[in-house]
Amino acid sequence: MPPEILPVVEKILSANDMVALENKKLLDEHGVLAVNVMASPGAGKTSLILRTIEALRGQLRAGVIEGDVAGHVDADKVAETGIPVVQINTGGGCHLDAPQVQNALKQLPLEQIDVLFIENVGNLICPTGFALGEHVNMMIANVPEGHDKPIKYPGMFSEVDALVLNKIDLMPYIDFDLEAFRTAVTALNADAPQFLVSCKTGEGIQEWAEWLLAQSQRH
Amino acid sequence: MPPEILPVVEKILSANDMVALENKKLLDEHGVLAVNVMASPGAGKTSLILRTIEALRGQLRAGVIEGDVAGHVDADKVAETGIPVVQINTGGGCHLDAPQVQNALKQLPLEQIDVLFIENVGNLICPTGFALGEHVNMMIANVPEGHDKPIKYPGMFSEVDALVLNKIDLMPYIDFDLEAFRTAVTALNADAPQFLVSCKTGEGIQEWAEWLLAQSQRH
Repeated sequence: MPPEILPVVEKILSANDMVALENKKLLDEHGVLAVNVMASPGAGKTSLILRTIEALRGQLRAGVIEGDVAGHVDADKVAETGIPVVQINTGGGCHLDAPQVQNALKQLPLEQIDVLFIENVGNLICPTGFALGEHVNMMIANVPEGHDKPIKYPGMFSEVDALVLNKIDLMPYIDFDLEAFRTAVTALNADAPQFLVSCKTGEGIQEWAEWLLAQSQRH
Repeated sequence: MPPEILPVVEKILSANDMVALENKKLLDEHGVLAVNVMASPGAGKTSLILRTIEALRGQLRAGVIEGDVAGHVDADKVAETGIPVVQINTGGGCHLDAPQVQNALKQLPLEQIDVLFIENVGNLICPTGFALGEHVNMMIANVPEGHDKPIKYPGMFSEVDALVLNKIDLMPYIDFDLEAFRTAVTALNADAPQFLVSCKTGEGIQEWAEWLLAQSQRH
């Protein structure tokens, strides 16, 4: 009998990663699909979350964690719709982390939630470095910020599971090269589906919501 | 004769702050006014810099340091105009720091520059924590990112010496409450002048450029 060779496990988990795993386990126990929503400031994160919840009404029960440096503008908007929501204020921090989300999860009725949207702090760079326990990482790009963002901020574009391009209603007023944008995104991340939407008009929301519903059903 | 009382200097400078002081000294020796340009991704930092240089042509000689996570799209745009420019790639870093700027300064003809624009990485949070050696800190907000940004990201709004609101040409197509925005900014920072501009149409650029010229003359 050959000697048993034990693999040397070199992966050291950071404190954040360990809490993220705990969060994921808790979410899995409750059958909750968690979606990490990342974008620049003002890309339409809350608007997309609200539109998506509306599109999935009757099919998925939603919950929301709102991450902001300060204030509770977005949580108030969500609360108005009757959806369970917890606001995290990072107090200067440029991204959410797993312990913050862990605390927020304690305040949510997880047994009544199928899909949990975790709205990260508006930032195209830092959030990607911190796992939260999410199952889906997605980002929202937007037309007014320009088509060159994938070239300048490749990290987030290359790591997400899905990309939504919001504010397509503004296309007529802005020099946005959609083909250049899509080509640049695909070069970084050929696997992530790209959805073109307008949270203002509702265009394209259904297609994105159906993709998310499929992820939830597969979960 | 009373005993001489020596003040105890408690302020400990970080490594970054010490390099920032060196940068400022070098800039002062060459009579260069350095402007730290901060904003979200896609707010129009490069566009505003180019418009301002154009408005000040014949009055101030400009130089530019471009800060990006990756790529050299913006530096190429500036180089096309014949203005001296150095690109810094942070390689994932979410803000510029003083040592990066120190290296960039070595590559610029400082004796031929009156005003140096340092375009920071697109990020509404992290850049405020890192002095670069600049004389003026300014930020660009923009209409499509929404009027609630001062509430959500108070740090940068409260610390800048001047604020430019860009993309006012898009006002007719966006629900942007200008009065709410200005009130929120003034509450955080009553001293910073607020300039409303469109880098697309050129509206408002002259007023901002004249303010900057006055800073340079006072320098």
